[in-house]
Amino acid sequence: MTDYRDKRVLITGGIGFIGSSLARALVAQGARVTLVDSLIPTYGGNLQNIADIRDRVTVNVCDVRDRFAIEYLLRDQDFLFNLAGQTSHMDSMSDPKTDLDINAAAQLSILEACRTVNPGIRIVFASTRQIYGKPDYLPVDEKHPIRPVDVNGINKLAGEWYHLLYAKVYGIRACVLRLTNTYGPGMRVKDARQTFLGIWIRQLIEGQPIKVFGDGTQLRDFNYVDDCVDAMLIAGVAPQANGQVYNLGSDEVVNLKDLAQMMVELVPGRSFEIVPFPPERKAIDIGDYYSDFSLARTELGWSPKIDLQEGLRRSLAYYREHGQHYWDAQP
Amino acid sequence: MTDYRDKRVLITGGIGFIGSSLARALVAQGARVTLVDSLIPTYGGNLQNIADIRDRVTVNVCDVRDRFAIEYLLRDQDFLFNLAGQTSHMDSMSDPKTDLDINAAAQLSILEACRTVNPGIRIVFASTRQIYGKPDYLPVDEKHPIRPVDVNGINKLAGEWYHLLYAKVYGIRACVLRLTNTYGPGMRVKDARQTFLGIWIRQLIEGQPIKVFGDGTQLRDFNYVDDCVDAMLIAGVAPQANGQVYNLGSDEVVNLKDLAQMMVELVPGRSFEIVPFPPERKAIDIGDYYSDFSLARTELGWSPKIDLQEGLRRSLAYYREHGQHYWDAQP
Repeated sequence: MTDYRDKRVLITGGIGFIGSSLARALVAQGARVTLVDSLIPTYGGNLQNIADIRDRVTVNVCDVRDRFAIEYLLRDQDFLFNLAGQTSHMDSMSDPKTDLDINAAAQLSILEACRTVNPGIRIVFASTRQIYGKPDYLPVDEKHPIRPVDVNGINKLAGEWYHLLYAKVYGIRACVLRLTNTYGPGMRVKDARQTFLGIWIRQLIEGQPIKVFGDGTQLRDFNYVDDCVDAMLIAGVAPQANGQVYNLGSDEVVNLKDLAQMMVELVPGRSFEIVPFPPERKAIDIGDYYSDFSLARTELGWSPKIDLQEGLRRSLAYYREHGQHYWDAQP
Repeated sequence: MTDYRDKRVLITGGIGFIGSSLARALVAQGARVTLVDSLIPTYGGNLQNIADIRDRVTVNVCDVRDRFAIEYLLRDQDFLFNLAGQTSHMDSMSDPKTDLDINAAAQLSILEACRTVNPGIRIVFASTRQIYGKPDYLPVDEKHPIRPVDVNGINKLAGEWYHLLYAKVYGIRACVLRLTNTYGPGMRVKDARQTFLGIWIRQLIEGQPIKVFGDGTQLRDFNYVDDCVDAMLIAGVAPQANGQVYNLGSDEVVNLKDLAQMMVELVPGRSFEIVPFPPERKAIDIGDYYSDFSLARTELGWSPKIDLQEGLRRSLAYYREHGQHYWDAQP
């Protein structure tokens, strides 16, 4: 795919986990990439994520809440991959206003900026399967009722709908991808703020037992980050994606106990243990979840290529080599 | 009903159309009522609405965005009827940030205040049928997909969901009523910012022809304000309402042309005309809409009592007598 050669591309959250992988793919295609990231220490930005492409991208450190900076940066861009967000469900409950400012208010000001200074831009917005809440049925397709279980889910949904509304009312070419659990090199492993898989990887490497919450029977699907990036690249240039919402997902559905087993088998001498849910996690647990991503498959021609074992192997290899930049690092 | 005798009740938007009618009903029951209103001139607050109860309520002029004032006012209240909102769909598109601040951010700070200083309060939140968007089927029940057609709808929905989330996660006793077109004494008649019925009433009284947009075949349901107030009073004390969403509505479904005909027949010598949609209204028009309110009927024992002809007659009588305080008045 060379759709992005010489194209100007802005990535919010660009030094984060998925944003940096996307940047790497875009640089490889010859795009002119600008990364926006707030580098808030508890969020996903980590300069190690872009160590290998640092001299081939433009880095602009600022927050998406910085309205005028963002408006300036959006001028003349061909594409916006809008990935910046507050992703911690716990933080959204303890500090709901910050979550609202980043996940809803800043999204609205980004769209207003596009409408006024760059209405020809194409936007891919990263949303989350969290907005479906506890599923009524499985797999969960895009028509499943929306039922956010935390402040984060409500605000992400508002952010998503602003994009769809600006597509519908103003003709801004925006689409929404609802990501499932994404993992791979660059994910936050210091804590469970992005994905529990980060913690598990770290525990594996550090020789601690993996902790599985609940009874281990919860079903999940996972996307390796390169597959998620592929979906974004396809969606960015697909005219049929304008104004649409697509689930990402995987046919490889696994329960957490089997996942833990698969992971400990990758590192000799490791083990996992089943522990009760911490109460604050139990309150927002959604039980089983996996996506129906047949719309993305049919309309975008996307499906994930990297299976779980291969993805986990690559992730482990990455953190074995670069872990010291992630365990306790500042961004 | 005397459930509210000596109870402390806060009404946001309390000098507005529905808030003031609710205040009147509560005062009649012996409640100790405090009205919060921003008195923003383009919004619904009008002191004429409370002229008859001015000495039996406490008026506190402030904006729901005034976080600390609201937190102070919420202390020691038994009930919150949370009616303040930016209601103009046009304004939400031209000034989306203000709409977000009032309809979403302020709602979140109100709930945070309740959680921290008054978790025992009972809350009724006034939402809107607008969040359903263009209906997939009629009548529209609470399970109908959510599909906001403007920034206002997205933000109202976020505000609504914060209430349901705080009910679920923190046990705050909050419920949501999704109002349909509400009309009656106290509605804004200066312009169409609250309801086109306000403009129609004014045109009738001033001797101008009523203007029906589109082809006049759009179906709607309407609630006279006293019926809407009844629903709120019931929901406020119904334990089964906690964490629930209820549509309001009416069995009397009418198309706009027949409604115009009914109205011109109430005032000798008047007429109506069918005119094309202004383009900015057409973009967000939702076609036919009427509610299935059987959940409110079954669970709350509520149904509307005042038919359209009687409600319109009372409204006309009110504005014939008090219209001069509404046509061009400051709040």
